Amino acid sequence: MHAPIVFVTDFGADDTYAAALAAACWRVDPGLTALAGMHGVPPGDVLAGAYHVKAIAQALPPGAVICAVVDPGVGSERRAIAVEAGGLRCVAPDNGLASYLWAESDPRQRRCVALRTPPEASATFHGRDVFAPAAARLATGHSLDDLGDPIDAPPRLCEDAFATTAKDQTELAGAVCAVDHFGNAITTVRAADLHGRAVAAVEWPGGATTTSVRTYQEIAHGLAVLTGSAGHLEIAARGRAAAAIGGPQPHDPVRLRLQP
Amino acid sequence: MHAPIVFVTDFGADDTYAAALAAACWRVDPGLTALAGMHGVPPGDVLAGAYHVKAIAQALPPGAVICAVVDPGVGSERRAIAVEAGGLRCVAPDNGLASYLWAESDPRQRRCVALRTPPEASATFHGRDVFAPAAARLATGHSLDDLGDPIDAPPRLCEDAFATTAKDQTELAGAVCAVDHFGNAITTVRAADLHGRAVAAVEWPGGATTTSVRTYQEIAHGLAVLTGSAGHLEIAARGRAAAAIGGPQPHDPVRLRLQP
Amino acid sequence: MHAPIVFVTDFGADDTYAAALAAACWRVDPGLTALAGMHGVPPGDVLAGAYHVKAIAQALPPGAVICAVVDPGVGSERRAIAVEAGGLRCVAPDNGLASYLWAESDPRQRRCVALRTPPEASATFHGRDVFAPAAARLATGHSLDDLGDPIDAPPRLCEDAFATTAKDQTELAGAVCAVDHFGNAITTVRAADLHGRAVAAVEWPGGATTTSVRTYQEIAHGLAVLTGSAGHLEIAARGRAAAAIGGPQPHDPVRLRLQP
Repeated sequence: MHAPIVFVTDFGADDTYAAALAAACWRVDPGLTALAGMHGVPPGDVLAGAYHVKAIAQALPPGAVICAVVDPGVGSERRAIAVEAGGLRCVAPDNGLASYLWAESDPRQRRCVALRTPPEASATFHGRDVFAPAAARLATGHSLDDLGDPIDAPPRLCEDAFATTAKDQTELAGAVCAVDHFGNAITTVRAADLHGRAVAAVEWPGGATTTSVRTYQEIAHGLAVLTGSAGHLEIAARGRAAAAIGGPQPHDPVRLRLQP
Repeated sequence: MHAPIVFVTDFGADDTYAAALAAACWRVDPGLTALAGMHGVPPGDVLAGAYHVKAIAQALPPGAVICAVVDPGVGSERRAIAVEAGGLRCVAPDNGLASYLWAESDPRQRRCVALRTPPEASATFHGRDVFAPAAARLATGHSLDDLGDPIDAPPRLCEDAFATTAKDQTELAGAVCAVDHFGNAITTVRAADLHGRAVAAVEWPGGATTTSVRTYQEIAHGLAVLTGSAGHLEIAARGRAAAAIGGPQPHDPVRLRLQP
Repeated sequence: MHAPIVFVTDFGADDTYAAALAAACWRVDPGLTALAGMHGVPPGDVLAGAYHVKAIAQALPPGAVICAVVDPGVGSERRAIAVEAGGLRCVAPDNGLASYLWAESDPRQRRCVALRTPPEASATFHGRDVFAPAAARLATGHSLDDLGDPIDAPPRLCEDAFATTAKDQTELAGAVCAVDHFGNAITTVRAADLHGRAVAAVEWPGGATTTSVRTYQEIAHGLAVLTGSAGHLEIAARGRAAAAIGGPQPHDPVRLRLQP
């Protein structure tokens, strides 16, 4: 049985690009039918893509393959890689898409190879011609070593992906890494970054909240902070987008004050 | 061979949420590959969700599983259920999503169990942690009884899902339950509710039509009423959204006068 | 093993219509699991649909099936067809959706049959009741001849699908056939139409460019022309939609001057 493949791209679902990834897998093996995808990463937004790679990784069974393509540098000299980390495999351009997957996995059980680009690949569509075929080969039983040579340096990481601690560990500084379909503003601050301490306040340009909740249903009015399903803190309103009532915008910085 | 699973949600397709449902099924069994989904129910709109559950049910083969997640009350005390009706199975929060599926099926061949929620389920994402795994178990051969205990009361039904008859059966009162991609305003009035009588007029706040047609192509100009592919009456324009030329909005009430 | 099926429609992904195509295939055979789709053809835009049929055809393995449904004439007298061309099969209304697939394939290895419409088919949804079942039968091993009778005339072609040559072969006249998710304006002019000559300039109503590039990354500023992944010339900007800085709109005419 083949390993499942999930695509994470900024292609949108309204073009042929997303469907072409499935088609390219079927060129390798038409039996590859455990395929799913999210194609709504904002165009060129590598940080949002990295978050979504992490979020889908948490739902996947061991051995699954993520094919991540947010690739404004297609056709240029940027490297293409395949990563093994956290029990999963991920192919992607080497631009930070694997940031969370790499940084949050056991250093003794992760590795990275550089993919070979076939000379006949289109200059504008490596998703179809490089990444999907590589994902298909992994899903059908090939190992990372069949796809390319190990690289010494780790993959590139997004600078902004990880919240920083300041003021004697009572403050955390991060950013909004993704805004979901419901308008919840997901931040780079993870529940684990709190080390068990409670949130006193979250601030962003032009707004703040001191309300913490466990579920969306508990939000009586205004904005609140809660831990989303991938373990990141998010700013949410009830029944509408956080930004509609003063919540943060994509990529806005956020600052958390923790209770002592 | 596994039963097909179709997801009906308000997750949108641009987040990882929809793809995570497939991933969660693959955690149960990576051989579950007959998966499809529609994720465009307006956020929190249970009536629209109920209509789409019905519409997809009409296309599915017997034994298929619908995993419906429009769940503003996630993490609260609302019940999670699995329903068997009309030869299909459906897992959903108990908030009315199964209204049509339940009410339109043979009372002797339908039943309902309450799903158990695993203690480790995320407070904000029961789609991934409760509903998709339950759907996957049904699709791989488990019965409703393996998922939970039978409940005596029927599932909750949407109050607005069923048109009412008035004035000596010459009038029907309903509402717009969904507006499709082409802008056709689908109502809660079903062709079967007419009992063979023809429509004399349809009225809604600010507009009306007396034109009935069989196909979109027959609409010469203005608005017309026709029976859509799921058996519900809809208000349509030709080549554009009904609302663009005065047709009803989502959730608008509609009133039908029948020919004597 | 079954042949893959890809849907190309204008249904959008937010309705049940797209998912119903998969469901209808599973009525024929629930083992049909190599399914993908793009449902973002602008409503009723047959020329854009024809381009997307071509684009996905280039990614598919031999024997695959395309189920194309952009069908404003559903329920009227327009013919339904199945085409074999370029090693693929395609079912579609006979309105020009197969234009590129037919015209660009070897005349000795292409043919066309008229599909039979089952009497119980809905008047408004032949995708579910005619085209998807026909695609499913092809994918499970049936031949074109099992679906209908050969027709003598070729399928209808889109008039605007093919660029024309003028002025001693130094000018090409075409049009924008599709605008992709990134805002690149894809034209009906194919790289092959240049017969090896370089582009001197591209003009459209209100704008022009003399810059040719090979990758999006090479665009320093303004608009440029490059060959997209399906072999058509496109007008692109870097990091935003071409139309946002004066590029052509959908269906705008374009004129290419070639270098001598």
